[in-house]
Amino acid sequence: MLTYNLKEKDGPLYKSLYENIRSDINRGILRCGDKLPSKRTLARNLGISIITVEKAYDQLIGEGYLYTLPQKGYYVANTVLMQPVFPSVPAPRIINRTREKEKADFDFSSNMIESNCFPFSIWAKILRETISMKERELMTNPPCNGIYELRSAIAKHLSGFRGMSIDPDQIVVGAGTEYLYSLLTKLIGENKVYCIENPGYKKLKSIYELNHNECRLVSLDEYGIRMEELRDCGADVAHISPTHHFPTGITMPVSRRYELLAWANEKEDRYIIEDDYDSEFRINGNPIPTLQSIDTGGKVVYMNTFSKSLASTIRISYMVLPPELANKYYEKLAFLACTVPTFEQYTLAEFISRGYYEKHINRMRLYYGRKRKRVLDIIRSVFREDQCRIIENDSGLHFLIELNTEVGDAEIIRRLQEQGIRIGSVNDCDMEGKSGKSGTFIINYSNLNVDCLEEAVLALKDASLM
Amino acid sequence: MLTYNLKEKDGPLYKSLYENIRSDINRGILRCGDKLPSKRTLARNLGISIITVEKAYDQLIGEGYLYTLPQKGYYVANTVLMQPVFPSVPAPRIINRTREKEKADFDFSSNMIESNCFPFSIWAKILRETISMKERELMTNPPCNGIYELRSAIAKHLSGFRGMSIDPDQIVVGAGTEYLYSLLTKLIGENKVYCIENPGYKKLKSIYELNHNECRLVSLDEYGIRMEELRDCGADVAHISPTHHFPTGITMPVSRRYELLAWANEKEDRYIIEDDYDSEFRINGNPIPTLQSIDTGGKVVYMNTFSKSLASTIRISYMVLPPELANKYYEKLAFLACTVPTFEQYTLAEFISRGYYEKHINRMRLYYGRKRKRVLDIIRSVFREDQCRIIENDSGLHFLIELNTEVGDAEIIRRLQEQGIRIGSVNDCDMEGKSGKSGTFIINYSNLNVDCLEEAVLALKDASLM
Repeated sequence: MLTYNLKEKDGPLYKSLYENIRSDINRGILRCGDKLPSKRTLARNLGISIITVEKAYDQLIGEGYLYTLPQKGYYVANTVLMQPVFPSVPAPRIINRTREKEKADFDFSSNMIESNCFPFSIWAKILRETISMKERELMTNPPCNGIYELRSAIAKHLSGFRGMSIDPDQIVVGAGTEYLYSLLTKLIGENKVYCIENPGYKKLKSIYELNHNECRLVSLDEYGIRMEELRDCGADVAHISPTHHFPTGITMPVSRRYELLAWANEKEDRYIIEDDYDSEFRINGNPIPTLQSIDTGGKVVYMNTFSKSLASTIRISYMVLPPELANKYYEKLAFLACTVPTFEQYTLAEFISRGYYEKHINRMRLYYGRKRKRVLDIIRSVFREDQCRIIENDSGLHFLIELNTEVGDAEIIRRLQEQGIRIGSVNDCDMEGKSGKSGTFIINYSNLNVDCLEEAVLALKDASLM
Repeated sequence: MLTYNLKEKDGPLYKSLYENIRSDINRGILRCGDKLPSKRTLARNLGISIITVEKAYDQLIGEGYLYTLPQKGYYVANTVLMQPVFPSVPAPRIINRTREKEKADFDFSSNMIESNCFPFSIWAKILRETISMKERELMTNPPCNGIYELRSAIAKHLSGFRGMSIDPDQIVVGAGTEYLYSLLTKLIGENKVYCIENPGYKKLKSIYELNHNECRLVSLDEYGIRMEELRDCGADVAHISPTHHFPTGITMPVSRRYELLAWANEKEDRYIIEDDYDSEFRINGNPIPTLQSIDTGGKVVYMNTFSKSLASTIRISYMVLPPELANKYYEKLAFLACTVPTFEQYTLAEFISRGYYEKHINRMRLYYGRKRKRVLDIIRSVFREDQCRIIENDSGLHFLIELNTEVGDAEIIRRLQEQGIRIGSVNDCDMEGKSGKSGTFIINYSNLNVDCLEEAVLALKDASLM
């Protein structure tokens, strides 16, 4: 009979009993096949309750130390297999995070927004109302492409703001454009050739390659992507940002848009991905019609995000699929759960449909217009007219400054880095790795602290001197 | 000289001017290469301001109708290319959403939680505090794997709750396990053979296949996955839910766990994915150590989610990578933005670290324990003992009911469907499509409405009668 001295002060009795028996098995005192006393017998022997014994036995069974035979009792299991196996080569234990991007004191390259620009009080108010009014909806799994209220609000916004006529069922809401790109490649098919603009947004290439596609780079003329190169490169899909190209700022005229659509219509499997990432911040004139709105062949996938117009950290983007791809989406990918929390979806839907989003954009457009002017004034007060040229365009949250300098881009970037200032050059966006002199730098002004700007611009000027 | 009769009542003057000129170009009155009057001349001629003319010209340039030659003036562009191209085959216009799962009046298969179980008031309180205290942090892009505060809170929770010793840098937070699986396949490498448990969670197969992997099915004995079949199937990766297998409810004993680890250690590229999806709701005894905590070879990726323990709609899951894969993650995938909004991340971090999560789990465990008992009581009051067998296990949010019936599963499911009742059978989870008689149905009780349960159980009984 097993006899242990169980003390309440060592914790729950069943746990002590469990540990004692386990230890006896591990030390070979109890051996494979040995029969244990019945619960009743052991309980009586130890002066404890049957329930306590039962809990200990159950735990030992769960962990594989004991097994039961019906109508017979409890037996010690074969525990030879229960010894840990040590691998011949010890696994590494140290985690090396790749060096995070060092924090810069002043960052001309940041694409975040100033935290005082986010409409916190309205957002908090709507969120509070949502939580108190929509308990049931918040706990209900949304459709794969997002709640109807949000898609409908987006469709209405696009109709008013971009003249686009869209069925909310064409819209897929997801946790960021990167996620949506990877969904999209599964719809369009993988092992395709994607053409991306060069210079351009480098991350795109990494994302398409990560998703099993080949990327071809096509250069730009003053109207955007060169059609001849596009034709020659054998692309199936062209990823374009016609409203405001990064980094050059080019806006593609309507004529080139029609040429692009004509190209897409030549073959059945060709598509255009229209990346409209900061179209809300066109400063002058009316916006040019989107490719999506002049597409008669169902060739354009329109992509946009609330990262620029609201905040990148709320992680909501969407794509508008042409009907054929939308049908394919419902057939093939509807089993994947929507990646955006219902809390954010309902809040954003209300935020848009009550008109706050439009107000916010209008406010931000004025704000950015003024800020852009202040930034330009400061630059012009530091540089003489012959020392730099501002490459402005009517749209978006960045512009270019071309310095009249003999110093290479990399050297200027290095010199500024030493002072805690981060800046990117157009050369950095060249994916063919041309390292020739450009002298042209990107000023992302949405997150710039204007109060320290003069100092940073002076440093840029100093860095550009031989 | 262009002369138009512009009227303020038709809207902004620049817009009327723009429309008049565009119309003249489209009708061929103005032709490719024609020179337009200077801004000053046209303004004087029409009796409007230079700025108005400038706005109209800018819009026309933007849209590609005009171009400028420096020092010379404005010219009409070649607009032949600006005509819409119509595809030879008209694109489909109708969107057919695949029939959404019809809403059932009573659903034994729902994996959602009751909305009154979510801790709305505490969540709302912490969210409100987060918004008022952390404006700057909320607007700052989080690290790729989630904010440190959340990962650190998770690591601490796993240490206390599961005895796991983890560096927060091993943790990757993402918008749902489906998203994390697709990330993981990019780390482990694609075109691998994944072994999944059969019967099991069907979606897994779809997800791994969507991510370019082959799936092999391995059947189970009473201790979980059969080791011999695993060895024979040539798998590189085994996806296992050892704490509580769906649907059988099997808990894998420690001995089988060590066997699994031994298998993984035999080859360098072998891994085990440990899916611990509802381990929080073990009802009796202590939890068995996780595979992750007894893994000495860096072979186990631990996955868990807040979908069961908090709500599936907040879309937060996490994985714990062994150091080698963590390093690979930082090297290869750190460029991808974290998919969870900062609002949710900070709120959840506080929720856990202030002890609310543990309290919530304890409360829910009691609640589910009681609910499970009520559900079982109702089932036992409707069925005679010889009419059904309850296959209970100590853990999780579902159990099985085996009916003593000659009616096939599909027929029972169909009969219930007609009455608006949804139920799934263990056969449905068989991915080899064996359609033999099982008579065993899955009772997910977390979202059941106990008040209508008796009626639904009676319907189940009726449906099982010949």
